[in-house]
Amino acid sequence: MMQKPKTHIFVCTSSRVGGPQKGFCHSKGGVEIMATLLEEIEDRGLSGQVTVTNTGCFGICEKGPVVVVYPDNVWYGAVTVDDVEEIVDEHIQGGKVVGRLVL
Amino acid sequence: MMQKPKTHIFVCTSSRVGGPQKGFCHSKGGVEIMATLLEEIEDRGLSGQVTVTNTGCFGICEKGPVVVVYPDNVWYGAVTVDDVEEIVDEHIQGGKVVGRLVL
Repeated sequence: MMQKPKTHIFVCTSSRVGGPQKGFCHSKGGVEIMATLLEEIEDRGLSGQVTVTNTGCFGICEKGPVVVVYPDNVWYGAVTVDDVEEIVDEHIQGGKVVGRLVL
Repeated sequence: MMQKPKTHIFVCTSSRVGGPQKGFCHSKGGVEIMATLLEEIEDRGLSGQVTVTNTGCFGICEKGPVVVVYPDNVWYGAVTVDDVEEIVDEHIQGGKVVGRLVL
């Protein structure tokens, strides 16, 4: 069996199946959130344990930008680039969900 | 707290952050797998419990097309459109992982 990531973080970048990404999370910084998250994970040497994946729409655009953490099953909303460090510090490394962002 | 999906299925369609989707899973039917999965979920009236989301690369392209089921944390590889009905029947509805496709 393959080595699964300990934590898998999904970031909505409004990727569409039929064409280029377009939508709420994309317009509100989804791509920058994704890039910042990847950078924080790499900087801390967590790439082997944490996978970050961009996604299409989660269907809750009014709550975006959306970041979902599995298998923890924690859904964050209205995430900004400035929240990324706290999510990594508190949740991914500290094991404590960032309550103020939870949906 | 929001109502979370009972099952969340992620399908790699090789969506890229910097442009249109392109890559192994996309070239091997990722979009068709996604569409068929959505259809099967809707046909069975499971849309309220099961969310299907398209994604970018999982980094294991040689094992694609990749379908990941959370929070079950089950990873399927080399998935074809013909496998979708079995995944929905056996795993999503039956609760039994489709062993022959597990990575």
